[in-house]
Amino acid sequence: MAGGGAAASALASPWRALLQRALDGNAHLRHSTYFQLATVSSGGRPANRTVVFRGFQEYSDKIQINTDARSNKIGEIKSCPFGEICWYFTDSWEQFRISGSIDVIDGSNSDPNKLQHREKAWFASSVRSRLQYLGPQPGVPVIDHDHVNDVRLDPSAGPVDAFCLLVLDPEKVDYLNLKNNQRLMFRRSRKEDGSDNWMAEKVSP
Amino acid sequence: MAGGGAAASALASPWRALLQRALDGNAHLRHSTYFQLATVSSGGRPANRTVVFRGFQEYSDKIQINTDARSNKIGEIKSCPFGEICWYFTDSWEQFRISGSIDVIDGSNSDPNKLQHREKAWFASSVRSRLQYLGPQPGVPVIDHDHVNDVRLDPSAGPVDAFCLLVLDPEKVDYLNLKNNQRLMFRRSRKEDGSDNWMAEKVSP
Repeated sequence: MAGGGAAASALASPWRALLQRALDGNAHLRHSTYFQLATVSSGGRPANRTVVFRGFQEYSDKIQINTDARSNKIGEIKSCPFGEICWYFTDSWEQFRISGSIDVIDGSNSDPNKLQHREKAWFASSVRSRLQYLGPQPGVPVIDHDHVNDVRLDPSAGPVDAFCLLVLDPEKVDYLNLKNNQRLMFRRSRKEDGSDNWMAEKVSP
Repeated sequence: MAGGGAAASALASPWRALLQRALDGNAHLRHSTYFQLATVSSGGRPANRTVVFRGFQEYSDKIQINTDARSNKIGEIKSCPFGEICWYFTDSWEQFRISGSIDVIDGSNSDPNKLQHREKAWFASSVRSRLQYLGPQPGVPVIDHDHVNDVRLDPSAGPVDAFCLLVLDPEKVDYLNLKNNQRLMFRRSRKEDGSDNWMAEKVSP
């Protein structure tokens, strides 16, 4: 693919190999699993924040993010269910812009399969990470935060109400390598049988 | 301010001191001047990309970004003139989310003062950086990119047509420190005489 020139090629999620290489090559950096997720706020303005990559959903390209159901982004995504991830790898100078629709999975979800994904994500995160969902609502004025230290959590207990799983389903991936100045654009089309077809094209950086 | 608790305090751009401290503390990292700029695309979806901080405009809090006038973001910003910067400092674990309106200053701008800012930004960037504005339009399919090596530029020549200065005027700054788990929200109000008034509030992370 790297030598594909202008020719478009159809491969199964060809950008995944590039992303995996970047993850491996930058694995020594704690922040290599952090990326910026942009959404559109209810007022139609852009919103942007750093979140943590929680892996791909099994047997798919869907990207998982844990978040607090009480944070502003939940309302934002419900009114405009799209996001663009900007993932910059600081050691290899590679950028992945990954855009797609976002599914919000909180405890009220009616799909047992999705609730299972949420539960899995809960137990996959550290107890320390889980504790933050027992804290006060994000973004509200702090009066007294001493009580945060008193919070205890049974490690075997399932997800709390505030725990929400976001699942971004990639439609377009814009890859830029600043070391060799190469840029590749990947676009998805969905086949009738539900499987994905990805086209790759070399574009100017 | 750090000990201000829930009390709101009015100070002149109080977040600038925090940002300067983060810039100084992370200056050994090349990527510390890179941040992610989110905008809203013409289709109403979010867009997000890494850009380089080109300093503040003199005597103001306005943030400067150089870009290619032929890139998609120009049309996006013209139809929705707002942006949110997400600036994560990987060494100090600090995040600044800076939102505000964006002014697009290309060569066709009618304001001589703004054109002067654009020219200044052009000469402040390296000749190597300037060369990219002589390359092909970003995002178009690459047929043959050998000609890129032939491009020459007179270092004393002014900005080319493709060079565009973006100026983000901050309205809200959401500061998060992941080391001490503190979050401060700064909101601007503009006084009648045109000067800014910033309010700071401690909020839950």
